[in-house]
Amino acid sequence: MNEQLGRQTYRLERPPVAVSWANIGGRQEEAGPLSPYFDELDQDSFFGEKTWEKAESAMQKRALGRALEKGGLKAEDIDAVFAGDLLNQCIGTSFGLRDFAIPFYGLYGACSTMGESLALAAMCLGGGFMQKAAAMTSSHFCTAERQYRMPVPYGSQRTPTAQWTATAAGCTILASEGEGPRITHVTCGKIVDKGIADANNMGAAMAPAACSTLSAFFRETKTRPEDYDHVVTGDLGALGSQILLELMEAEGIPLSNHLDCGLLLYDREGQDMHCGASGCGCAASVLNGYLLGGLQDGKWKKLLFAPTGALLSPVSSCQGETIPGICHAILWEGRL
Amino acid sequence: MNEQLGRQTYRLERPPVAVSWANIGGRQEEAGPLSPYFDELDQDSFFGEKTWEKAESAMQKRALGRALEKGGLKAEDIDAVFAGDLLNQCIGTSFGLRDFAIPFYGLYGACSTMGESLALAAMCLGGGFMQKAAAMTSSHFCTAERQYRMPVPYGSQRTPTAQWTATAAGCTILASEGEGPRITHVTCGKIVDKGIADANNMGAAMAPAACSTLSAFFRETKTRPEDYDHVVTGDLGALGSQILLELMEAEGIPLSNHLDCGLLLYDREGQDMHCGASGCGCAASVLNGYLLGGLQDGKWKKLLFAPTGALLSPVSSCQGETIPGICHAILWEGRL
Repeated sequence: MNEQLGRQTYRLERPPVAVSWANIGGRQEEAGPLSPYFDELDQDSFFGEKTWEKAESAMQKRALGRALEKGGLKAEDIDAVFAGDLLNQCIGTSFGLRDFAIPFYGLYGACSTMGESLALAAMCLGGGFMQKAAAMTSSHFCTAERQYRMPVPYGSQRTPTAQWTATAAGCTILASEGEGPRITHVTCGKIVDKGIADANNMGAAMAPAACSTLSAFFRETKTRPEDYDHVVTGDLGALGSQILLELMEAEGIPLSNHLDCGLLLYDREGQDMHCGASGCGCAASVLNGYLLGGLQDGKWKKLLFAPTGALLSPVSSCQGETIPGICHAILWEGRL
Repeated sequence: MNEQLGRQTYRLERPPVAVSWANIGGRQEEAGPLSPYFDELDQDSFFGEKTWEKAESAMQKRALGRALEKGGLKAEDIDAVFAGDLLNQCIGTSFGLRDFAIPFYGLYGACSTMGESLALAAMCLGGGFMQKAAAMTSSHFCTAERQYRMPVPYGSQRTPTAQWTATAAGCTILASEGEGPRITHVTCGKIVDKGIADANNMGAAMAPAACSTLSAFFRETKTRPEDYDHVVTGDLGALGSQILLELMEAEGIPLSNHLDCGLLLYDREGQDMHCGASGCGCAASVLNGYLLGGLQDGKWKKLLFAPTGALLSPVSSCQGETIPGICHAILWEGRL
């Protein structure tokens, strides 16, 4: 029986298995330390398209196509895709998926989307509905800058707390049977808003949501951070990670094994990345390369993957709103 | 056992039950023929807030609050909310839910969101994970006009194929046990794009998606439209409905019992609504009042509810893209 361990955490009786995964990145991702863990890297920020928005769709298309190919699968083998992105109306996803004719559930979880898509896909598989499902998301530096801040050609100065939106996409194909890293638990996040209003300080806005979801996970599973190889957040960056560590310490659950995809993807100093990487594509590309690869190779046995999202929009900020955050956690266990 | 009847359709062994529902509307909804089927109607398009975006959040807050109240439930009783809206980054939802502290999965399915949220909530309940979940969405005429077309104060002329975005929200609370209308099957839609590029003709863009999902439902369940009281689409409007009827006829599955929420919500002639109502809030408010009430009262036994969404954005249209559509279907059966 599947089981609700507490209000937010679900244990999957038959853990869905990642049977294939793929990621794609751009120029900065190629220049970073995780470059060897990408399936595709492209120096062209347009990915062969005429606009950056179309480029983001092309990335999702290539990530899904590559994941299918690596798994020896066809589009017809996939029961549903769970996907979203940061663009208004999630057009990176809808246009990226248009030609595959795979049933589709569209999501918006900001930068938590890789966690949300995996959680929902895992429950639809674990509930006995689907056999194979894909979870996917993307971000693109140039589309995100234009939409959330300033068009890139303006050359705006970045604040010290700013993060760099990854130009990347990642796709996981989960199956109800097979070999590979498995999802054994998922924790659904609550919206947490501690009053941060600075849209250039996402890490601080999202850290309380990470603390809320991680605390719920440890409380409801009756485990401690030390029971896992790493607790991996999505894109808190340098400042957000520091805040998370302080908040968890105050909760009585100190994290000694914390990693953040936003601090893994780039060489912060060498690439002048301020507080680190961000964007849906950050956690998605680090998971669907470096992290799942490490679980597959036996480098790690258990990773708690907990990407966070900031649920603001430029309009909400202009109307004086603070930034609500959310975090969805996924427990990955290495293959048996 | 839950069962996959075909690639897109899932049968729920223990059908989740709608134990409570609520809707809220504005001035035009009050003036329309479904006025008696609303829980709340407000003449103030700001719903007591300072901006229309905040008004949309207020509508979601009141719809969820009212559904909880009608069901004798507290926020703590709900395991998760599945919700989204049409606004960039779905801020109607995230700010509307912020104060409830209910675990949350954010969705983007454009005007199909009421179907998508019910489908995912139903599978999470039917899979044995959750006990109670809410599905919700909203739209607001003034926020949608500003975002997708022109700010309302400009007084732009509307084209004959235009539809009027409903200022409304609806919320269904599903439970794994209880009395009320039940969800016995869900069908997940595929993205369908037949090349319509006119953002003022959404009905035509979405009708092929409705045809695709409805055809899949009838094929996979081995049933015919006549097996149901009505096949109810979300907001195809007058032109989109006519196109759907022609497409279904060509598929050999003529619909003799089709209704469209977009044609039910307003008095088209009297209220000068051109092709009818549209927006997530249209299908959501018609379902969570008129339709679920009719199922509850025994007026109908089986309704196939199939809202459609247009997955475009103003940016995609400006970049010359056509309009992809999607449709998610839910089979509702009256209480036993």
